[in-house]
Amino acid sequence: MHDTPNDQNQHDQVRALRWSDEGLTVLDQRLLPEKVQYHLCTQAAQVAKAIRTMQVRGAPAIGIAAAYGVVLAARQCWQTHGKQWKNAIKTDIDSLAHSRPTAVNLFWALDRMGKVINFIDGNPEAPLLKEARAIHQEDIEANRIMGASGAHLIGSIQGILTHCNTGSLATGGYGTALGVIRSLWQRIGTSEEIQIFATETRPWLQGARLTLWELEQDQIPATLIADSAAAFLMQQGRVQWVVVGADRIAANGDVANKIGTYALAIAARQHGVGFMVVAPTSTIDWHLPQGRLIPIEQREDKELLPEYYRRTDSLAKAWNPVFDITPAELISAIVTEKGVITRPDSSSMKKLLQNV
Amino acid sequence: MHDTPNDQNQHDQVRALRWSDEGLTVLDQRLLPEKVQYHLCTQAAQVAKAIRTMQVRGAPAIGIAAAYGVVLAARQCWQTHGKQWKNAIKTDIDSLAHSRPTAVNLFWALDRMGKVINFIDGNPEAPLLKEARAIHQEDIEANRIMGASGAHLIGSIQGILTHCNTGSLATGGYGTALGVIRSLWQRIGTSEEIQIFATETRPWLQGARLTLWELEQDQIPATLIADSAAAFLMQQGRVQWVVVGADRIAANGDVANKIGTYALAIAARQHGVGFMVVAPTSTIDWHLPQGRLIPIEQREDKELLPEYYRRTDSLAKAWNPVFDITPAELISAIVTEKGVITRPDSSSMKKLLQNV
Repeated sequence: MHDTPNDQNQHDQVRALRWSDEGLTVLDQRLLPEKVQYHLCTQAAQVAKAIRTMQVRGAPAIGIAAAYGVVLAARQCWQTHGKQWKNAIKTDIDSLAHSRPTAVNLFWALDRMGKVINFIDGNPEAPLLKEARAIHQEDIEANRIMGASGAHLIGSIQGILTHCNTGSLATGGYGTALGVIRSLWQRIGTSEEIQIFATETRPWLQGARLTLWELEQDQIPATLIADSAAAFLMQQGRVQWVVVGADRIAANGDVANKIGTYALAIAARQHGVGFMVVAPTSTIDWHLPQGRLIPIEQREDKELLPEYYRRTDSLAKAWNPVFDITPAELISAIVTEKGVITRPDSSSMKKLLQNV
Repeated sequence: MHDTPNDQNQHDQVRALRWSDEGLTVLDQRLLPEKVQYHLCTQAAQVAKAIRTMQVRGAPAIGIAAAYGVVLAARQCWQTHGKQWKNAIKTDIDSLAHSRPTAVNLFWALDRMGKVINFIDGNPEAPLLKEARAIHQEDIEANRIMGASGAHLIGSIQGILTHCNTGSLATGGYGTALGVIRSLWQRIGTSEEIQIFATETRPWLQGARLTLWELEQDQIPATLIADSAAAFLMQQGRVQWVVVGADRIAANGDVANKIGTYALAIAARQHGVGFMVVAPTSTIDWHLPQGRLIPIEQREDKELLPEYYRRTDSLAKAWNPVFDITPAELISAIVTEKGVITRPDSSSMKKLLQNV
């Protein structure tokens, strides 16, 4: 089964997206860690809502969920509109495309599904499901390759820090940055030899809620820190690598990722700590020459602002961008499934493009 | 009245500590902003508890509260032990001294009270109250001087960022870093000309809960950001100065302050943003040659760790230092009531010592 955990790897037991004949089952990440609750999506609109409301989050997982959403849309459009399904499905695809703005994997996955749609004649469900499963399976395989490459690059260290959640919950399975940590742990495997630190990741607490939970499911111990404590941790020499994922990478190697990533990259540079971005090539937006062109999602004040201030006459407001841009020059390595780019820039990125 | 707000300044209406014949009334800062609730302390042990449990917090406020605590201790010891009160009071002073470890103002205030105790003959309450009131009053006056100096140094800017709470709630009144912001606002006074940003300040949310509340009481608008968003805000050119307080300053100008201060200083340097520390000379520990010798308080896991992980068999834990050390070389200016030190180091600090 492509979307089940690897039985041979006790450190890879979590899956957030599962396909069955009924539809796409989604682990509701808003409720973790207190509650493990799954929702079945049988319609594309439910998948779009699951993405918009952050039941599903993480750039690769958003792409995969959207691909399965297209399968559900096709099933319904074929039932309702028969041979006219290709016209009818456009609305569903459009609503999936508008569910979140920053992660480029979403548009990449919808493009792939769109190319298959162009060539389908007859009932679309089987060929589209095949493509969605392929997107899902390739993501897991890419993560395993990146996990091994990233862990190899890191070698032997004392401490590693990760930000947000980039694990099985954020991807098809195994994870990007957290895949590197899984791979390191699989090799080293004792907390005497390596210590894993996770930031809380305000405001949504992906680190505190999701990363700690996911690692615990896989028997991997981790230590939570406030986002603002990362620089102090580095000053004490307790971290040799920061490992993060990406929501979109520009053609020059600039990286959009969870708010706070940029601050970590600056602090890492200040302390001579390595800074690694782990992302499949589906995260790279080859059309964007620079990171500053990446659209940054602004989320609601209320994610940050205590309820007391949510009055119309309040003088307090909030600025809540959920991603930021880390310039390529602060990045030690971008690890993809097609190769590792050390000290990324436009020309080294261009060489990678030849492998994609 | 020394401890009431300045009626002539509409931007200075908040007081967290008030003395009356009954004792010390303390605004419970754990309940803000939802609830404005005062507790009357009639015994030194209650004051120590108020400090330990963070009803009162902020280095200068801790020192002032402890001074009033000594008055309450003296009142009780004189009633109970008569002429033997000087022996009896030692336990109370010791318990006040052990209420929090990092802020040096606590020990400084207890030292001042101790010197008065040495010279008292007869009922100690009046002379000790006089000294406690002087400590309180001098703190407010120092804050006004620092507010004016800091605002003068900043001149005219577009955006200013502050961390934690350093206002009337954290001091005798007016505030240190927030005093500078009050002074700037008093002069500039429109949000078109200057924008004030406050970090949330995890884990205790002093920024979100206290700074926004205090500024709103004084009709000053402010914008909340996640701690991790500060570097991104600077990257966008929206901040020209970061202004913070201090819990202890070493003799070489290294600064211990709320966790996250160090990360802000690194980000400020990266962006050519000014970094100002505002603190009365009572915050300087002339005996400590370097910041790394400052004891850093570690607080409980549970301030950070979601309840789910607070099980004995949990693999998740937390590292929760509540202060960090910013090296002097990252600081543009230390503003004190005795003078401003630009680019602080041991020798410029030594010159300041001649004024103290």
